[in-house]
Formats: sequence, structure tokens, C-alpha cells
Amino acid sequence: MDNTSSKDVSFEQAEGYRYVEGGVCAAKGYQAGGLNCGLNPVKEKNDLALLISDTPARAAAVYTTNKVKGAPILVCQEHLKKTGNMARAVIANSKNANTCNADGVEKAEKMCHLAADALQIAPEEVLVASTGVIGEILPIEPIESHIGALAKGLSASGNLEAAKAIMTTDTVKKEAAVEFELDGKICRVGGMAKGSGMICPNMATTLNFITTDACISADMLQQALSEIVRVTYNCLSIDGDTSTNDMVLLLANGRAENAEIRKEGEAYRKWKEALYLVMLHLTKMLAKDGEGATKLLECRVEGAPDSETARIVAKSVISSPLFKCAVFGEDANWGRVLCAIGYAKADFEIDKTYVSIASKNGKVEVCRDGAGIPFSEQEAKKVLSADEITVWVDLGQGEEKGRAFGCDLTYDYVKINGDYRS
Amino acid sequence: MDNTSSKDVSFEQAEGYRYVEGGVCAAKGYQAGGLNCGLNPVKEKNDLALLISDTPARAAAVYTTNKVKGAPILVCQEHLKKTGNMARAVIANSKNANTCNADGVEKAEKMCHLAADALQIAPEEVLVASTGVIGEILPIEPIESHIGALAKGLSASGNLEAAKAIMTTDTVKKEAAVEFELDGKICRVGGMAKGSGMICPNMATTLNFITTDACISADMLQQALSEIVRVTYNCLSIDGDTSTNDMVLLLANGRAENAEIRKEGEAYRKWKEALYLVMLHLTKMLAKDGEGATKLLECRVEGAPDSETARIVAKSVISSPLFKCAVFGEDANWGRVLCAIGYAKADFEIDKTYVSIASKNGKVEVCRDGAGIPFSEQEAKKVLSADEITVWVDLGQGEEKGRAFGCDLTYDYVKINGDYRS
Repeated sequence: MDNTSSKDVSFEQAEGYRYVEGGVCAAKGYQAGGLNCGLNPVKEKNDLALLISDTPARAAAVYTTNKVKGAPILVCQEHLKKTGNMARAVIANSKNANTCNADGVEKAEKMCHLAADALQIAPEEVLVASTGVIGEILPIEPIESHIGALAKGLSASGNLEAAKAIMTTDTVKKEAAVEFELDGKICRVGGMAKGSGMICPNMATTLNFITTDACISADMLQQALSEIVRVTYNCLSIDGDTSTNDMVLLLANGRAENAEIRKEGEAYRKWKEALYLVMLHLTKMLAKDGEGATKLLECRVEGAPDSETARIVAKSVISSPLFKCAVFGEDANWGRVLCAIGYAKADFEIDKTYVSIASKNGKVEVCRDGAGIPFSEQEAKKVLSADEITVWVDLGQGEEKGRAFGCDLTYDYVKINGDYRS
Repeated sequence: MDNTSSKDVSFEQAEGYRYVEGGVCAAKGYQAGGLNCGLNPVKEKNDLALLISDTPARAAAVYTTNKVKGAPILVCQEHLKKTGNMARAVIANSKNANTCNADGVEKAEKMCHLAADALQIAPEEVLVASTGVIGEILPIEPIESHIGALAKGLSASGNLEAAKAIMTTDTVKKEAAVEFELDGKICRVGGMAKGSGMICPNMATTLNFITTDACISADMLQQALSEIVRVTYNCLSIDGDTSTNDMVLLLANGRAENAEIRKEGEAYRKWKEALYLVMLHLTKMLAKDGEGATKLLECRVEGAPDSETARIVAKSVISSPLFKCAVFGEDANWGRVLCAIGYAKADFEIDKTYVSIASKNGKVEVCRDGAGIPFSEQEAKKVLSADEITVWVDLGQGEEKGRAFGCDLTYDYVKINGDYRS
């Protein structure tokens, strides 16, 4: 479990796009940094991150649908309203969610003011995010005493320290970035995310920050974000618990100097694909580093009457605790897959269903027309011994597809969440 | 975990009702039995149960809403249609669900025929149920060769052997029965159930068989069953997985000789309360013996705008994997309770919420008006060290109530479901 290299996720190839280093600093004109300000008693662990765009950026956001909303969300909504969806900076802390506290909004506003003073910008140009324990008062002093050093240390290579600062029970930092050409200019989209429990995003996800240097209107920025969230983060579940602090923030500063994207068309499609690749990769990283997880579990549904049905079925499979345990135990208990397909809340026929289980070690067909077929247990065990498992489902009643991402359920999930107020 | 006495559930008192022994044989005119026929290789474990009413009984049933339905369900539906909701006997096996098999219906019908021949009744008077692994062909030979001995051994004290025969990963047998007076006659309702994983009933639950000697019309029998299922089994979740073979069968043979209950009124209310007490107790037994569970977890919601909202909120709390782990770890992580209330799919305001955590060891208030309040961690730890924990939630926006039942999430849940194709 502490062999972090096992958490690496394979990149999906797409023509015309190249994965690059740099996370939230990959795109032009962004600086970031992170440090330990003392919220986390372990001095080696960062707990405070700062991200700035050198020039004003358009901003889009999606938030948790949980009725309990963290104070930072309320402050972000207010600030974006005031600025007409513009932002310069994001401040984020881990170890404390600043949620369900009577002074939550006051403290979140204070964080914005502290960052604004240090960066010499307006407080409403700062967005704020927190993650950690719910319902404990956020101590502001550690942030106040370290914001100066954090602002001073910002750099175009500070993405890694920032990505570390938003980690909670994550075992690896999560970054992704891609590069492509737009109007003859090099354009980039990059991001960072944190997991790794209380993950079942719904219209949003846990903390995710994405930056791009593309020039794009605020409306198109929001449209793309909402669309891509639906097929990436919203198709992810670690444990079915939708967090109170879920948030995706997307900044676009226009520094790539492409012609402004103002409507759907080739440029929008091209840029949106880059956003998809980054968010898809972060989604898979989140899934693979789910609390206690040893395996990335993906379900790909084909032959569905519509894409929404495909995603609902896929999410039902990767959410089943019983199947998640079977994957951990490397047991090809496909009856649990079919059971989870059967209780998916969507309208379709079950008796045309085809199921196979695949990994880099091979593919084994286990169910045809909704009934079991003989298969080699030995072969299945080999397939399931890999660290990325894909369940292929063909519903046999349409042309639409969907994917969902999760992980196995292990002793360590119970240990992490039983032992520690995370 | 093997200390079965820790799985005992405290009885809820209700005036005019007395808990009695006897399970499905508590009511007059029922005989039962169970044995090992060889489906289970462990000879000491029963795997085949038979239940008979000495005289024809009216029957009511509810089944799983999973699109994948076990073959026994299809056969029960067909038989009850043929007989106009009358039945004489039930045959049930464990170790094999007879689900997702091409020959499933044929085998389920064969089970009914074998029982009918042995009991000298018509095959359509027999109902059938199976539980165990999905998608493995059911061997009929062991049943065929043991049905004679099973029928011969039926007795009015055979309830225990029958209850044992339907157990899968259950660690204790589950029976309950109550006695009360109706029209000056002694009347009884009793039942047995099996758990203990793939439990998230929806309009039904895993195998449950209830008998009564009350005289009641088939319509009123079904009405009461559907109504009580909604507030008992449907408010239970071990792991969120709705099984393919869920079924509750209720038989009423009229042997108590009360005046037939044909409409709502005092007699119906009185009998329905007995049914509620039996099903409530079985529900709590199922929850407390959830796979790997060490604690019964109940959530009681008050102050809700309607009872459906109360139940949805209660079920959301007892279903949260994060909170279930915290209960296992005896950590008063109430933020997870509020988070689970917040994502419950119902329409209500969150900021009036009051939460306290209680057990036989005391009660600790942790949240008022949706915000945390100071509490003694030591006191909370003491409360959580009990083996039956109740989370009290007051939504502060109405008069309605609801309850839901679950258990903690432990290493053993993962072990049971990772190691063993159950």
C-alpha cells in the first residue's frame, strides 16, 4: 500500500494531445505553492496551498449537491457573483473542512482577505477551499502567520507543493496536464485533485483545481466544465458518500493568445477534449487511490439505450460493496456484477446482458444473455490479479456507452475510517 | 464474533403482546423441519427447510425490485396466481440462489413437485425460495434424495432446524413470535429470516417466512404485509446491495378461529401490530448480524415534514460507509452523520438539524441547528462502546418520524466477501 508507484494510472492516448508535467502550473501564467502552516501537526506534510494567475482569469465552478455545504463553497459562490465569474487566486487548506461551524463563512472570508493582502489583489478575486474534518473550528492563526511566506514562495514550478498541500488520506499527489495546438498556438490544460474517502461526486467532486491558458468566454468555460464533470467525476465512487466540500474550480487566463472561444465549434471541441483528458486522468487517479484501495476498478457499459443509462449501470457496478470485496479477493464473482446491474435505477431489459472481465492479463467472458457461462477460474484469477480491472458490460439494446470508476473495498478502508477522525 | 449471545436483540415492549418461542411454528397448525441434504458440504449445517400448514392458508408475498429475479420468485408468483393466493407449504434451500441459470425455473418447479409428492398436496400449493451463490447450476439430486426424510421429520417444534437451514453467512438463526388476544381467542404471529450480506431491501427483503393462525382475508393479508415491509425490512441496509432473491412470504391458516378480518378496524389494527413487532424484531436481528457486524446501528428521525422523508434520512445515515466505520472504531464522528443527512434524497432544510448519539450507556448531544457543539469525547466513547447504538436526529420541521436499521462496517465484512464466494 505504501508503494506509491502502484498508484500510477496509465494515460489514455488521444491524437493531437500530449501529456506534460506541471499540473496547475502547466498552462502559461500560473504560479503555485504549498507549505505546512501547522494545521497538520506532521511538519513534513503541507496543509496550505496557494494558486495565482498572473493576469485576471475567467472562472467556472461546480459544487457538491449535498445540502450541507462547506462555508468555502458559500464564499466562492458569493465572490464569483461579485466579480462576474472572474478570479485571480485560490487558497486551499487540508486537515479541516471548515464545515458545520457557526463561524465558517467568517473564517473562509478571512482566508480570502489574508491571501488578497499578501498578493495585493482584491479579496473577491480570491476563491477558497477547505478539506478535512467536518465540524471542528478552523484555527486561522496558522494561516495568518504563514500566508506571507507562502505568497513569497509562489513559482511556476510550485504545482507539486500545492498538490501535496490539499492531500488528506491520499497516498499520492494527483496532477495531470495536456498540451495541444489551437489557432497555431500552444495551449495547455492542467489540474490537481485530492481524494480519497467520502467520494461519490454528484454534480461536482472533492477538491479539484484546473487551469488553462486558453482564451474562452465565461459561458463556454462553465458549459464545458459542467459537461465534462458529468462523464468524469460524477462517474466516480469510492464509497458512496457525497462530501460536503466537493468543488471543481476552473480558471482560464487567455495567455495562449488563441482567438477567444465564444461558441461551440472546432476550437471549443478541441479545447474541451483536453479538459476531458485531464479530468478523466484525475478521476482515475482518485479512484485508484481511494481509501485503502489496491486496484482501480472501471466498468464500461456498451449497447445501452442512452448514455445516462449506461453511466447509471456502470456506476452501480463499481459501487457494489460486495463486488468491490470480490475484486479485492480476486474472486470472479460475476453474479454480484449482474445483481448490481439489476438494481441500477434505470429502465432497461436485463436478459440480453453480456459481461466480461478484463485487465492487461487478458479477458474472460462470464455471462451471456443474463445467464452464466462456463469459464476458467484460473484464467479469471489471472485477469483479476492485475491492478487495473475493467468490467465490460453489453446491455444489447442500443448504441450508447458509459464508463464509471471506483476501487476495491479492503481492510485498509475500514482501518483508515475506524481509527482516525479524517 | 463467534460469541452468538452478543447478537441477541432487545425486545421492544408493546402492551397486550407477549413474545413467545416457536418461530414459524408458534402459530397453531404449522410444522417445520430442516436438514443437511448435501448442498452444504459441512454436514452439521442444514441447507434444506420445509414448512407446512396443516390446512390450506391464505398467502401474501413481496419480492425484490432487482431486475434480476431468482427463478424461485418467478415460480412463487406463478403458483400464487394459479391458486388465487393460497398455499400449503414452503420449501427453501441455502448455498445456491438458483438465479441466472438457464434451467432455473425448471429446477424451482422440480423442488415444488418433490415437496408436493412427499406431502401429498398439489405442486402449485408449494412455494419455493433459494439463497446462496448466484449463477451456479442447482444440483437437484441432493434435494430429491432427502425430501422424504425431511417431510417425515416435520413437527410443530421443527422451527429451529428450519431456521438453521436458510442461514448463509448468518452467525445466528433468526426467529421471532408474539402472542395476543383476538375476539377472545389466543392468536400468534411468528417468523424466521436469513441475512446477512447483499442486504438493502427495496419493497421486499432477503428470505423471510412469517406464519399466523389468524383468520384474515387474502386482500387484508397482502395490505398489511406491504405496509409493514415499508417500515421494517425496507428500512434496513447492511451494504446497499439489493439481492436478486429477496422474498417475504406470509401464511395465514385461520386456526385461531377469530372472526375473519375483512377490512380495516380494531381487529386488523391489533393483528397488524403483532405482524409489525415480529417483522421489526427480525429486521433488527438481520441488522445486528450483518456480515462482519459488531454493533446494531439504528437511526431515529423525528421532526420530519413527512414519514417518507424521515425514513429516507434515517436510511441515509445507517448506510454511510464512513459513519459505519466510525461506529466500528467507536469514534463520535458526527460530521459524517450530518454529511449523510445532507445527501439524503429528500426535500428539507438542513440548518435546523439536531443530532445526538445514544445507547444503554447514555446520550450525547453533538450537533444543534446544523452546527457542532462542544461535547465530552470520553462520554461519547462510552456511549459508542455499547453493542446497540441509536443516532437521534431531529429535523425540526414537522411532526413525522421514521427509523432505519444497519450495522457497523468492519474488517470481517471485507474478509467474508473477499475470501469466499458466498
